[in-house]
Amino acid sequence: MGSENQGSLGFPPAKRRLRLGVVGGGQGSFIGRVHARGARVSNRWDVVAGALSSRPDVALQSGREWLLNQDRIYSDYREMAAKEAERDDGIDAVAITTPNNTHYDIACAFMAKGIDVISDKPLTTNLEDALDLVRRQKDTGLIFGVTYAYAAHSMVRQARAMIRQGLLGRIRQVHVEYFQEWAMVPPDQAGAGAAWRVKPELVGRAFTTGDIGTHCHHMGTFVTGLEMETVRAEFHTLGPDKPLEDTAFMHVRYVGGVPGTIMISQVAAGTHCGFQIRVFGDKASLEWNQENPEYLHYKPFNAPAQMLSRGEGAGIDVSAARFVHMPRGHPEALSDAWGNLYEEFAIAIEARRTGSELPEGMLEYPDVWDGALGVKFIEAASDSAQSGGEWKSCVI
Amino acid sequence: MGSENQGSLGFPPAKRRLRLGVVGGGQGSFIGRVHARGARVSNRWDVVAGALSSRPDVALQSGREWLLNQDRIYSDYREMAAKEAERDDGIDAVAITTPNNTHYDIACAFMAKGIDVISDKPLTTNLEDALDLVRRQKDTGLIFGVTYAYAAHSMVRQARAMIRQGLLGRIRQVHVEYFQEWAMVPPDQAGAGAAWRVKPELVGRAFTTGDIGTHCHHMGTFVTGLEMETVRAEFHTLGPDKPLEDTAFMHVRYVGGVPGTIMISQVAAGTHCGFQIRVFGDKASLEWNQENPEYLHYKPFNAPAQMLSRGEGAGIDVSAARFVHMPRGHPEALSDAWGNLYEEFAIAIEARRTGSELPEGMLEYPDVWDGALGVKFIEAASDSAQSGGEWKSCVI
Amino acid sequence: MGSENQGSLGFPPAKRRLRLGVVGGGQGSFIGRVHARGARVSNRWDVVAGALSSRPDVALQSGREWLLNQDRIYSDYREMAAKEAERDDGIDAVAITTPNNTHYDIACAFMAKGIDVISDKPLTTNLEDALDLVRRQKDTGLIFGVTYAYAAHSMVRQARAMIRQGLLGRIRQVHVEYFQEWAMVPPDQAGAGAAWRVKPELVGRAFTTGDIGTHCHHMGTFVTGLEMETVRAEFHTLGPDKPLEDTAFMHVRYVGGVPGTIMISQVAAGTHCGFQIRVFGDKASLEWNQENPEYLHYKPFNAPAQMLSRGEGAGIDVSAARFVHMPRGHPEALSDAWGNLYEEFAIAIEARRTGSELPEGMLEYPDVWDGALGVKFIEAASDSAQSGGEWKSCVI
Amino acid sequence: MGSENQGSLGFPPAKRRLRLGVVGGGQGSFIGRVHARGARVSNRWDVVAGALSSRPDVALQSGREWLLNQDRIYSDYREMAAKEAERDDGIDAVAITTPNNTHYDIACAFMAKGIDVISDKPLTTNLEDALDLVRRQKDTGLIFGVTYAYAAHSMVRQARAMIRQGLLGRIRQVHVEYFQEWAMVPPDQAGAGAAWRVKPELVGRAFTTGDIGTHCHHMGTFVTGLEMETVRAEFHTLGPDKPLEDTAFMHVRYVGGVPGTIMISQVAAGTHCGFQIRVFGDKASLEWNQENPEYLHYKPFNAPAQMLSRGEGAGIDVSAARFVHMPRGHPEALSDAWGNLYEEFAIAIEARRTGSELPEGMLEYPDVWDGALGVKFIEAASDSAQSGGEWKSCVI
Repeated sequence: MGSENQGSLGFPPAKRRLRLGVVGGGQGSFIGRVHARGARVSNRWDVVAGALSSRPDVALQSGREWLLNQDRIYSDYREMAAKEAERDDGIDAVAITTPNNTHYDIACAFMAKGIDVISDKPLTTNLEDALDLVRRQKDTGLIFGVTYAYAAHSMVRQARAMIRQGLLGRIRQVHVEYFQEWAMVPPDQAGAGAAWRVKPELVGRAFTTGDIGTHCHHMGTFVTGLEMETVRAEFHTLGPDKPLEDTAFMHVRYVGGVPGTIMISQVAAGTHCGFQIRVFGDKASLEWNQENPEYLHYKPFNAPAQMLSRGEGAGIDVSAARFVHMPRGHPEALSDAWGNLYEEFAIAIEARRTGSELPEGMLEYPDVWDGALGVKFIEAASDSAQSGGEWKSCVI
Repeated sequence: MGSENQGSLGFPPAKRRLRLGVVGGGQGSFIGRVHARGARVSNRWDVVAGALSSRPDVALQSGREWLLNQDRIYSDYREMAAKEAERDDGIDAVAITTPNNTHYDIACAFMAKGIDVISDKPLTTNLEDALDLVRRQKDTGLIFGVTYAYAAHSMVRQARAMIRQGLLGRIRQVHVEYFQEWAMVPPDQAGAGAAWRVKPELVGRAFTTGDIGTHCHHMGTFVTGLEMETVRAEFHTLGPDKPLEDTAFMHVRYVGGVPGTIMISQVAAGTHCGFQIRVFGDKASLEWNQENPEYLHYKPFNAPAQMLSRGEGAGIDVSAARFVHMPRGHPEALSDAWGNLYEEFAIAIEARRTGSELPEGMLEYPDVWDGALGVKFIEAASDSAQSGGEWKSCVI
Repeated sequence: MGSENQGSLGFPPAKRRLRLGVVGGGQGSFIGRVHARGARVSNRWDVVAGALSSRPDVALQSGREWLLNQDRIYSDYREMAAKEAERDDGIDAVAITTPNNTHYDIACAFMAKGIDVISDKPLTTNLEDALDLVRRQKDTGLIFGVTYAYAAHSMVRQARAMIRQGLLGRIRQVHVEYFQEWAMVPPDQAGAGAAWRVKPELVGRAFTTGDIGTHCHHMGTFVTGLEMETVRAEFHTLGPDKPLEDTAFMHVRYVGGVPGTIMISQVAAGTHCGFQIRVFGDKASLEWNQENPEYLHYKPFNAPAQMLSRGEGAGIDVSAARFVHMPRGHPEALSDAWGNLYEEFAIAIEARRTGSELPEGMLEYPDVWDGALGVKFIEAASDSAQSGGEWKSCVI
Repeated sequence: MGSENQGSLGFPPAKRRLRLGVVGGGQGSFIGRVHARGARVSNRWDVVAGALSSRPDVALQSGREWLLNQDRIYSDYREMAAKEAERDDGIDAVAITTPNNTHYDIACAFMAKGIDVISDKPLTTNLEDALDLVRRQKDTGLIFGVTYAYAAHSMVRQARAMIRQGLLGRIRQVHVEYFQEWAMVPPDQAGAGAAWRVKPELVGRAFTTGDIGTHCHHMGTFVTGLEMETVRAEFHTLGPDKPLEDTAFMHVRYVGGVPGTIMISQVAAGTHCGFQIRVFGDKASLEWNQENPEYLHYKPFNAPAQMLSRGEGAGIDVSAARFVHMPRGHPEALSDAWGNLYEEFAIAIEARRTGSELPEGMLEYPDVWDGALGVKFIEAASDSAQSGGEWKSCVI
């Protein structure tokens, strides 16, 4: 095969595999299995319990498919929280992979039992709930991760590091876009894992802005290190009839007045997961695309374009090299990024549970505050669109 | 080398090479030489006269470099119009390649002498002048072409044909962007061919919106066949200090409420001429990029993406095949596109001068009306930016 | 995130996770961890035992890092075979991830205990040993997989399916290449996981031909379904001094006289894992590259090129769709391919152990016979190079 | 449009346009028109005379289409040589664009009249004729250019310059390939411009090796600056039945024992003009592809890959910058490369005719000696293939 690499450079080794429980993820669902795959890839977790569905028959059958022990297959997450909290070998953390409107209650239930939380995004369906989770996290000191998993690609970390190092100079404009085509199928034909995403009672005030717009919001702020201050949005429903937007175009402002744009659509025929960020500074620009996540394009002004690739050496920052599991040229992809994220969650949780100190800045996973900012962004964009295009604040 | 092709499929053969005069294009200028190169590539023109500069010494030296005959080197375009009109072998058309604020007067001078006009864009610095040229063209019946040359690439014609044929279904959204980096150099260091472009007294109310935004406006409407109705713009000066915008982000509406975006910047570090159009319909999308002009990406919903390449056969429409000079795989590029445009101008002018009829729709070159629409677009975008983002009409 | 998919379409569900032991893979090694990662990704295996090194201290420390139970950390693979065979919860299979010269003995030891074998490639350092393993496998009926993992990418399966379906017509030529740069570092500085690869006493008669040439041999025959009959090779040592070749160029013939080429080098500056196959038929060609494994380029004669991407629907064969874990556009990569391979191994082993029948052709993993053909290929190429370029048979 | 550039940096300005006559290129031919287009693009030539066909009716009609004056349309190249030599405004050079077997006689006829020669490749159908032309050129001192036009791309000159500057270190291996699909059509259906290429009586001992193999030979030696010493070839006829090879695979040796490969096929379905060179040194590699001629990929060992693009500044050597006609990002392509070549021919011819000295190394166009080396390469490859793969010398 190829040459050597050390893997997980500088991360503390695991003392044991942590135990993960999953809520959601049963038959007909999609994202729960992605969480579980990431946990396995990280090699720091065993998935040992699940309330994979609220329908008992589906929960049972799904639990068997996941090879869970019979006594740790639940159909009620509250029961799961209670029983797992009582076990000596109870779960260390819960992964919440259900529709948006249930995140808040589930998170509260597990936090109340002292169990760390890993929640899918968007965090909640309204800012009030999100801020309440922020408070509860602060009060309990529990770890609360939010799965903006794209930001856990090694080359996204590299982009962030290069900007932090000043290689782009002063940031001048930021463009993020995310195009998908799957919502061109009418919602009632799009499968259980998709259909709920367009229902206001389950997702809140936005479909596409919540589903993929929040990734754009997070990526733009994470990579640049700049908070987003305001947004002006227009919402469109361009595909099959539905009660919420499936497309949105936005102008935004980051701290310091740095302008940017966001374009999102889930009815863009011929696209799959066309999630791209471009950051322009007064010295150079960076470009990264999630469909080719191994490459980071660094383009200095009036000089040859450079293509950095994931790996060690060759100008790669330690914060990116930490996530190198295969040598350069042996591609990693989305499962690996989820693995990276679950590795960070595990390190944070183990450190909390063992009372260890971690070096400042070693972990960069998104937390409950990032989740709340995503909810605020959804509300601001939605307010702006409803107002006919007024600028709205994204700041909490 | 390779296999055969007929070239200029179905265009009437030239009876003679037409005679072209050029205003502008002298030393320190750029675009005039591009016009001349296109004229030569077309093999339907000889460049025989020029007022290449208003400074007599520059005009003389440039004229010699261009290998013009001494008696057809002018420094005053009015003199050129008068003298050439008197000659038996006088120019058939003038190419206007000077700063924007002079286009109107020069065009009037040559039209008054019955000489056909080929003008660079933007047509004029204000709508009033543009509409006056529209009227004069109508009154005289002269040919008046405007050099939106990118739209003369064979694969842009192919894109237009495929949309006309319904391959995309109903158009749902249209995104056009154009990124350059050259204006990151301060205007006073950017060279004579660049510096005038940022001066309001020479270019009117906009820099980047006029220089490259008009290409986005034209390309979006040309390819889709949809008129642009309204624009909401924000203007930014993100590079070295200058009196006009060097960056603009816009939301637009085409006929029927089809939404779109335009993003332009001439201070986008690491980009060169990143001019791209993406059109999404309810069956498929198309994508074309001027830096790789030979390829048109056709992406049907839930089917393999296709890459059409310039050439004959293989699904290429006759309107695109007409401009095939080299077989598929032997790349053509910008000089060839300018050649295509000058070929169309020549055919139109020869037909007018010989009183021939051309088949309906054979020629698709941009004319004075397209030029006027570009000026209206600049004014609408500028008005919108000044108003803080009101929607403004692009319709004349 | 995105739309739904069923995952592992049509594969029988696992009854339990199988138990894997690993020989090799300790500190300083590379490929052992890749095997373990693949096993985890598949979700059909737990890694429960290991002789990760023959040095007891390294074995112990590595075993702890892998979170193995103390009593299942071994430094002698014979002890491991014996003890695991005695346990009720003993390993179902062993993964052999050591230098080439040890594969044979280790395989024999575990087969003797009735334990299924998964071996890295090349299978052995000489054909005699390889054929002996073939015989032992036949005698015992044990599963014996060989990890040509690249061929487990979903889109490689798709390529094979399309050729089987006749989409290329008759195969006319086949070109495979694999370029790396890592051996430009002198062997004694290349790290433990790399240095042994250039030592004849550990790897046999070839370095690069065994290390990556065998992947080319397997890929060419696997994708086309054509056996390789003869090879003419030249070997070069172009990088730092070493006793074996680091570069080889070959002309080959597949069944029916179909010609092809193989180019391999591990001192090709600026390349990483540039492993590419191109198959040309009389109707179309296919092209696949390991560094962008999600895309398969299908290029019919005189028609637009198509880019198929991993996912369900859109022309993807069931044999490729079986390995879809993320929807199209959410990239999978090498860990996922290893996961696919370990999934197939698990299904085969579970079926053998439970006496179940599997549908004909459902599994396409490389087995001990494929491994033996690889060894034959190494010997034929080496013989040819030594002879100054005679054609040598690759047929066993 | 964009920023400025000076064009033809450092070349002496033309005193007048030279006069070109063309032999071949009439209706049904292809390459003659490519020559003429290049001459026009260069702006240093007028095409004024032609023996475009040996059939009088075709010659006449083609000459009219080319807008030649009636008295300079010939059907007999000997008559053309004689008459043009007598005129005060006779042609300065002849472009020979006929089938291979006629190049020698035509070249002799024009050289005898003191007219400079520009010949298509391969130079002749046998080495004896080629060497006779070398002698005649030496005796007369006439300019004799051969149109290996791909090597006139600006970025090919850049590649050559970078290797000359030592950026790759010592050259270690060189791989050149050229794949086309057009000969998949049976020869009798492939059109007049194609059909003659497979006839031994017109092209000599090889089809594909002469037609595109010679480009590989020239490119490999031109870019590296290394002479090719020996070749081992196998010839195949994989497409429709024909008397000569349509596919060939070769191993070669450059000076100093540097190994390389050449792969060529004109029956490679789905390819167009896939002409690529990759040069690997002990510091870095370079890669260039004719279908994307604006970009040169420079890949240093263990460092980010760089993509150089045509233009001035940004590390571009003066020998490449001389051929910059459009600023970076405004693509040039094959017509521009032909223009570059015709520019060099014009400069050389003007210098000869005016007795001027040109700076050493300013011009790098291929000459009669390069043409003869190409013929020698064809013969060596053909001899090797006939011998069953013996190494044959390419050295004259």
